[in-house]
Amino acid sequence: MSRSVVLLSGGLDSATALAMAIARGDECHTLAFDYGQRHRAELSAARRVSVALGAAGHRELRVALGELGGSALTDRRVAVPEHSSGGIPVTYVPARNTVFLSLALALAEVIDAHKIVIGVNAVDYSGYPDCRPEYIAAFQSLARLATKRGVEGQPLTIDAPLVTLSKADIIRRGRELGVDYSSTVSCYQADEQGRACGHCDSCRLRREGFAAAAVPDPTRYR
Amino acid sequence: MSRSVVLLSGGLDSATALAMAIARGDECHTLAFDYGQRHRAELSAARRVSVALGAAGHRELRVALGELGGSALTDRRVAVPEHSSGGIPVTYVPARNTVFLSLALALAEVIDAHKIVIGVNAVDYSGYPDCRPEYIAAFQSLARLATKRGVEGQPLTIDAPLVTLSKADIIRRGRELGVDYSSTVSCYQADEQGRACGHCDSCRLRREGFAAAAVPDPTRYR
Repeated sequence: MSRSVVLLSGGLDSATALAMAIARGDECHTLAFDYGQRHRAELSAARRVSVALGAAGHRELRVALGELGGSALTDRRVAVPEHSSGGIPVTYVPARNTVFLSLALALAEVIDAHKIVIGVNAVDYSGYPDCRPEYIAAFQSLARLATKRGVEGQPLTIDAPLVTLSKADIIRRGRELGVDYSSTVSCYQADEQGRACGHCDSCRLRREGFAAAAVPDPTRYR
Repeated sequence: MSRSVVLLSGGLDSATALAMAIARGDECHTLAFDYGQRHRAELSAARRVSVALGAAGHRELRVALGELGGSALTDRRVAVPEHSSGGIPVTYVPARNTVFLSLALALAEVIDAHKIVIGVNAVDYSGYPDCRPEYIAAFQSLARLATKRGVEGQPLTIDAPLVTLSKADIIRRGRELGVDYSSTVSCYQADEQGRACGHCDSCRLRREGFAAAAVPDPTRYR
């Protein structure tokens, strides 16, 4: 039995990555972060998704990333934009995936997991530098040098199964695996009930994904 | 003016690394972590050292690493050993330097720093995998792929100025730069007043360092 740590944001992508890992037969331990994000509904979405898909366990870890500022997702004084402006957007949270993968690596060491699954995607994405395949490969090299498991020559893999898929491909794959996307929250400014704004970059990518996949969009808009 | 984020633990090594960066003329922003460590006196030591050496600012960030368990430094049910047993010791905190460097990277992005300084040492050290030069080089590669600064081709360096120095060399260098080692805390189980046990691996390395440097040991033992 393979044991994996799966980063779970409560959104569409990570739910699909979890479903894929479970379908492969992994014992999946999901991990979500309370990092001061304004869209807190994603934390309860992550808990729901973890249980619904049959993960072996779920943890929520606090990391005070929001105290550093620098992003519209953690700083309520910075507005979430309604359209892309080119370049790296203000919704980018500095070093977020590096921080999340690092903490997943810590958990992987503690529970002796051989894999970390992250649902990043470099096709229909928001242009964040830490979503690219070369970034994932660099983290895997680092992880092998950083850890007891790596030093002892045992396998340790960073698995990004969605990295080259389009949003429509991801949605089709998740549907085949029985993911209930109505319980996922992608919106950058979802309300407390998890209802989406329908206008932010993340809502736009998600909406276009359902349209391209010819799958009815189950998102609850407010 | 170069701007650096300096990881500051409150111990001897990171205090020296900070003094070296300040002597070089860097504007230094120090960063300490409340990660559930049992030796909490190091947090007040870090604040004292940052002010005494003239850093531009100091931040303390919470990250719930201790909740994951897996180390004698964060789990009071695991005893701190009084001598090395070979291999990676139980005082190793899973992925700690990766987590700390990631959060330093986040701060570096927010304040637009071009360098992260970490006082790791691979000579007189406890055998942790994330203290080796190849690990530091791998993190630098990752950092350049992970960040806006890296993507834009601006310099971003992980500086580990102590990595190949002996503990005695570090102490001599720090003395030249005016570091007051009496205000630093290295002990894995220092009491609330910062007084050292004198027996743990970290105390042993520190004591031997002062002896080898022929410098009187200013450590307050209990």
